[in-house]
Amino acid sequence: MKRGRFSFQLLKQGGEGRLGRITTPHGQCSTPAFMPVGSQGSVKALAPVDLQEVGTEILLCNAYHLYLRPGTEVVREVGGLHRFMGWQGPILTDSGGFQIVSMSALREVESEGVRFRSHIDGSLHFLTPAKVVQIQEELGSDIMMVLDSCPPYPASPDEAKAAAALTAQWARQSKEAKGGSGQALFGIVQGGVYPELRRQNAHELLEIGFDGYAIGGLSLGEAKELTFEIAEQVTDLLPKEAPRYLMGMGTPEDILTGVRIGVDMFDCVLPTRGARTGLLFTSLGPLNIKQARYRADAAPPDPACGCYTCCNFSRAYLRHLFLSRELLAYRLNAVHNLFYYHSLVRGIRQALSEDTMDQFVRAFFSQREDTTGSEGGETVC
Amino acid sequence: MKRGRFSFQLLKQGGEGRLGRITTPHGQCSTPAFMPVGSQGSVKALAPVDLQEVGTEILLCNAYHLYLRPGTEVVREVGGLHRFMGWQGPILTDSGGFQIVSMSALREVESEGVRFRSHIDGSLHFLTPAKVVQIQEELGSDIMMVLDSCPPYPASPDEAKAAAALTAQWARQSKEAKGGSGQALFGIVQGGVYPELRRQNAHELLEIGFDGYAIGGLSLGEAKELTFEIAEQVTDLLPKEAPRYLMGMGTPEDILTGVRIGVDMFDCVLPTRGARTGLLFTSLGPLNIKQARYRADAAPPDPACGCYTCCNFSRAYLRHLFLSRELLAYRLNAVHNLFYYHSLVRGIRQALSEDTMDQFVRAFFSQREDTTGSEGGETVC
Repeated sequence: MKRGRFSFQLLKQGGEGRLGRITTPHGQCSTPAFMPVGSQGSVKALAPVDLQEVGTEILLCNAYHLYLRPGTEVVREVGGLHRFMGWQGPILTDSGGFQIVSMSALREVESEGVRFRSHIDGSLHFLTPAKVVQIQEELGSDIMMVLDSCPPYPASPDEAKAAAALTAQWARQSKEAKGGSGQALFGIVQGGVYPELRRQNAHELLEIGFDGYAIGGLSLGEAKELTFEIAEQVTDLLPKEAPRYLMGMGTPEDILTGVRIGVDMFDCVLPTRGARTGLLFTSLGPLNIKQARYRADAAPPDPACGCYTCCNFSRAYLRHLFLSRELLAYRLNAVHNLFYYHSLVRGIRQALSEDTMDQFVRAFFSQREDTTGSEGGETVC
Repeated sequence: MKRGRFSFQLLKQGGEGRLGRITTPHGQCSTPAFMPVGSQGSVKALAPVDLQEVGTEILLCNAYHLYLRPGTEVVREVGGLHRFMGWQGPILTDSGGFQIVSMSALREVESEGVRFRSHIDGSLHFLTPAKVVQIQEELGSDIMMVLDSCPPYPASPDEAKAAAALTAQWARQSKEAKGGSGQALFGIVQGGVYPELRRQNAHELLEIGFDGYAIGGLSLGEAKELTFEIAEQVTDLLPKEAPRYLMGMGTPEDILTGVRIGVDMFDCVLPTRGARTGLLFTSLGPLNIKQARYRADAAPPDPACGCYTCCNFSRAYLRHLFLSRELLAYRLNAVHNLFYYHSLVRGIRQALSEDTMDQFVRAFFSQREDTTGSEGGETVC
């Protein structure tokens, strides 16, 4: 896997999506890409060896979480984030703009930055855009995200406007703070559900110039249709030669839609969070492993899947592990769900490369309607 | 790995311990052997692939747990315990005599069996010795244990005598209930801390005749010296040609002592339970990963260890995972602890084969006294 300074190569683009490749100091990843979430330096229940096996090429960690615990200096002393967590591939660190809003107490957004109390121990912190870049430089991630101001939904036009203005101001300060580490820095477009604010914010970010552009502040409660309407308005404004990242989304369906409006990168906790609630993503649709119908079901979760879980374990065993609260349940479920997500984006990439996206999407939905095979059938293992 | 009807081959024996090999329908294991505990059909936090990697040759499951959940018939319908849990090596199933006492409510020991309420849902159950054999035959384990009557400690001579008598009666009924499945059946010697009761109980079991003999009812609160005094009195009475299993013990030191009084098989939750409390077993002695001194410690848990955990992760990372309650913590700790235990018994077997047990034991203890190397030093990975 080639390593090098950050770059994005757009291999193909059309009405059905974009095919590309991101190069980083820790190797490459193909786009569209799905990034598993390892907020605290661990994709929940999985070891790096599992991530390699399920097909992860790039993962996401969270600077806010790692800054609070174990502390940036601990990660630096142990040799940086890659060495700390034993993952040698590309890592994107989110800035924590969203987490400061959603997790911490006593949050006060000031012009210079955000003052907040740690959700772990209540300690007081003040983070500026420059400090957040510095944290990510010390962590040593491959792609850094600027600190943004993400207002909760619903936000009035005035609230959204103020947040977007602050996001642009902070984006500029982030860019100025960036040293010569060779790490990439992505801007984040805010502006709520207001097209004119989004347009203006995107233009401000483009003027500053970033290695990639993220669309933030969506999927916070607004209707899904509106989410993608706004997201598409933004992608239409972004330069073709930079990667676009739709933050915090989503379902398999969201990814299909996101790709078709020109998104290159996705992240979501759904596959790993679902693993911990018994939700398995399969080619036949979602499966709730807790259900009594799987009590003595010898079939694998997804007969069409070739992951470690599906090749070795039955629905009956996974249900038993889950109901018994065995720790192995969360891992086997997570292995399957991430394998599913990575297979999905691999399938999308192949369809884009072969100009067969339409057929791919039709097959995706028709498999789910035909649930007669869900109780058994030939397995791929 | 040779598979076949159950047999035990005593390869060597002397004052320092016995070297042997157990053959089962699912392969062989060398003795002295340590069996990780997978009560509910899963060694906590570990997948079968991990067990292979850490060197597990045989593991223990619990018939009481599996009978209550998911139910014997579920395991049978899915193809038996090995297939259910994806482990193709030998499995010993404990009968649950001890768990019925320690976990269930409303326990009533009657002459015919034990009446109790499930610790899971309060349902009423009555298990006879014959029923417990039948459960284990349906599970399809390689080694079955008889239902025994294990009085809580301290037990008066009368209580211990009654329990031993019932254990002998039930042992006879278990043997009679056993079908032609090719599974081995082990008897369990009871008798509390009373040598005469132990002697009599052992003789009764020998008269019935079993494939192996376990020493039960120890390490329940009595002084460690007394534990091994009683255990040694029992092993002295047992036939050389059958394997001896000291149930539910123990620490690394217990295993060293047990081997020297002629024990062949051990099981204990300590390595996997310790994993979940942050206790790591190392060549330099126990290490509590929660301690602040490991906050930024880049060394692996045990520099002398070659396990996946020690080869890829630092004490600082393991401490972070543990304090963050990341699920990966329990797995990485369990991988290390079981690797340590299996390395220990492998070392013991080699020492027995080379007649160097004395040196082995001295080295074991002297490493722990010399803790100067515990903060770093050369690693084996």
